[in-house]
Amino acid sequence: MPVDAQAAIDMLKELRALTSDENGAQRLAWSPVWLKARAWFQSRLRELPVEHHLDAAGNSWTTLAGASPKALILGSHLDSVPNGGWLDGCLGVIAAYAVLRRIADEYESKPPITVRLVDWADEEGARFGRSLFGSSAFAGTQSIEQDRSRTDAGGTRLEDAVATCDVSIDAIGDAGVERKNAAAYLELHIEQGSVLEKMGLPLAAVLGTKGVERHAITFHGQEAHSGSTPMTARRDALAAAAKLALEIRTIAKRHPDAVCTMGSLKTFPGIVTAVVGRCEAALDQRDLDAGVLAEMYDEAQQKSIQFAAEEGCTVEWSRIWNIAPEPFHPQLIELCEGAIRETIGRSHRMPSGPLHDAAEVSRAGIPTVMMFVQSLKGISHNKIEDTSEEHLKLAIEAFDKLASKTMAWIQAS
Amino acid sequence: MPVDAQAAIDMLKELRALTSDENGAQRLAWSPVWLKARAWFQSRLRELPVEHHLDAAGNSWTTLAGASPKALILGSHLDSVPNGGWLDGCLGVIAAYAVLRRIADEYESKPPITVRLVDWADEEGARFGRSLFGSSAFAGTQSIEQDRSRTDAGGTRLEDAVATCDVSIDAIGDAGVERKNAAAYLELHIEQGSVLEKMGLPLAAVLGTKGVERHAITFHGQEAHSGSTPMTARRDALAAAAKLALEIRTIAKRHPDAVCTMGSLKTFPGIVTAVVGRCEAALDQRDLDAGVLAEMYDEAQQKSIQFAAEEGCTVEWSRIWNIAPEPFHPQLIELCEGAIRETIGRSHRMPSGPLHDAAEVSRAGIPTVMMFVQSLKGISHNKIEDTSEEHLKLAIEAFDKLASKTMAWIQAS
Repeated sequence: MPVDAQAAIDMLKELRALTSDENGAQRLAWSPVWLKARAWFQSRLRELPVEHHLDAAGNSWTTLAGASPKALILGSHLDSVPNGGWLDGCLGVIAAYAVLRRIADEYESKPPITVRLVDWADEEGARFGRSLFGSSAFAGTQSIEQDRSRTDAGGTRLEDAVATCDVSIDAIGDAGVERKNAAAYLELHIEQGSVLEKMGLPLAAVLGTKGVERHAITFHGQEAHSGSTPMTARRDALAAAAKLALEIRTIAKRHPDAVCTMGSLKTFPGIVTAVVGRCEAALDQRDLDAGVLAEMYDEAQQKSIQFAAEEGCTVEWSRIWNIAPEPFHPQLIELCEGAIRETIGRSHRMPSGPLHDAAEVSRAGIPTVMMFVQSLKGISHNKIEDTSEEHLKLAIEAFDKLASKTMAWIQAS
Repeated sequence: MPVDAQAAIDMLKELRALTSDENGAQRLAWSPVWLKARAWFQSRLRELPVEHHLDAAGNSWTTLAGASPKALILGSHLDSVPNGGWLDGCLGVIAAYAVLRRIADEYESKPPITVRLVDWADEEGARFGRSLFGSSAFAGTQSIEQDRSRTDAGGTRLEDAVATCDVSIDAIGDAGVERKNAAAYLELHIEQGSVLEKMGLPLAAVLGTKGVERHAITFHGQEAHSGSTPMTARRDALAAAAKLALEIRTIAKRHPDAVCTMGSLKTFPGIVTAVVGRCEAALDQRDLDAGVLAEMYDEAQQKSIQFAAEEGCTVEWSRIWNIAPEPFHPQLIELCEGAIRETIGRSHRMPSGPLHDAAEVSRAGIPTVMMFVQSLKGISHNKIEDTSEEHLKLAIEAFDKLASKTMAWIQAS
């Protein structure tokens, strides 16, 4: 009995029509449009023999009870960034719906193990800057005290915004009860990068989410007159920063999947008539291997000290944020590759640069894997985000195969 | 009969006490404090057998008539930037006063040629962004139509501000009548750089003011996700700009006195999670040789195109401002060196990176030279701007010798 991929694609289009405007998707978490998306999704559940409830963190759970309480969880998120795309998150939720429906049909409403669908609350963190809100509460990694007083651009507090959706910030840790009997977690997502398109591949098994080291780096030199200061008498903070901006590429390229990005550079006083006295840079480094990540961070620090010395400057580092890499489950990665190979004849493995709810689930000790489908032009978080319908169809079919293989794996374990 | 250098230094201190606050000098052109400085200076002229008037551009002229109408002009400016130093401009005016006084005494009020002192109006351009206001009107290089509607931070128009000092913007070109009989122009100024201090020299003859090429350079790449975009798939506008920030140093160092400065760099979107899609840089290039300047500008352009291509980016240049180099008069440079050598036993020649009123006077075809005195730490436009009293004394004595030599040169020519 095949999964109905075309029905899933039609549902995605229906959701897009319902929750987008001329600037793209507007399913900002805790907003009326997000609640509308969730109400629409729940109305579609009435066609299935399932139980539905929201947990203490606002995650939406749909359960098809099986002969065994051991549960396979399929999920992603319906929320979007403002002016977002039609696939980021939604694809995983709707694909999970299609798979759940196929399983309910195939096993006449009583599969051998329990199958659950989760729509995580506020994956994007677009309004309050707190990504993975619901999945971190599920995983027990919530950070209530830091988060309760976060405010949006209009001054509304996170605590008050979630309360409008009947979520009490102090109680979100209770979402951890949903971990009971969780045996595996699968998530289908668009790649949001250009690797698969460049390789001419529709699908990949995801090895895990990269760890991130994010730092603010300030070079201090000496402001001086552009006209009267000889080249040899300068202590140019921009020169030291420019050397580092180039060196981080060499550092990253030593490792196959590592990335290092200097996304921001600010010059002070920042006027054409003065040598730069102070230069502030922001550096983002990512890799799936914690050792590689630590090595890259160390190399960048050493090089920054060297460049500062060469330019008569000093340098300071301060950590903005960091998170450990989260490798996915080796056996589930194998199953994912197998499902892809059966669908398209070949497979590919790659890490995820962006974070996903799956990382939180994996961090909670639940065997986890993700599948990526190609993004056109690598663009996401934008209304032009897209994937060909042919690839969406292959993705839903491969994801369905992965679900079957994982059910068998859970039964056997 | 020696010049009274100590009296000049005492006058500088008196002026500082009269026109500074805890943040430095406040003699902003067209302001009450500037008018106070000028009134104080005029009160000191009563001790001398001179004629005084303001010209049509607000320049203040003091004339000691000589046997010949041929005039040696000595000058600088009393105006300062906000929170400025005690020597920038004032030193040249007060030194000229001391020399004029010495000449009046020596020749019993009737020197063989006429000697004039000028205090130029609004050299700094600190309020309206129009430097060399008075000296350009004198030289006939005024730019009335571009300047009349310039406004200060408070919205006041230049045209209205100068009118409060009885200057009509439409008439400033009439200041050109002051060029009549002008035979030479001499200006003593602090270096405002660190060259002389590093060389351990108090004084230098100035070869001219460097020409300036000032451009805005924009590199266009592709904004992309820091986490999901492989290093090899990036079109990083910051990388191209960083290469140029380093290359301009190599370009400048091929020429002994050239300088190239990237004083401002801006990244867009300028967030740590995105590869820089657009990078805007400001480049300032200066040299005394017009050919060298043109060559450096061309090299920077060529290199920027190369770097853009290497990074998959494009680059655009737009001129912010430029001015031709203004070499001073070869024979007056010789005389200046001679005066310095007689005073301190050795001499040095150097170009001026900053612009000065002397450049406008020279541009009008009047033989011109400047003398520089060492600046401590190379700092100017700041309340900590300073020069040792020993060096100030040597400077005034050498400048006095230069005036005597130039008078003889005018008489002989």
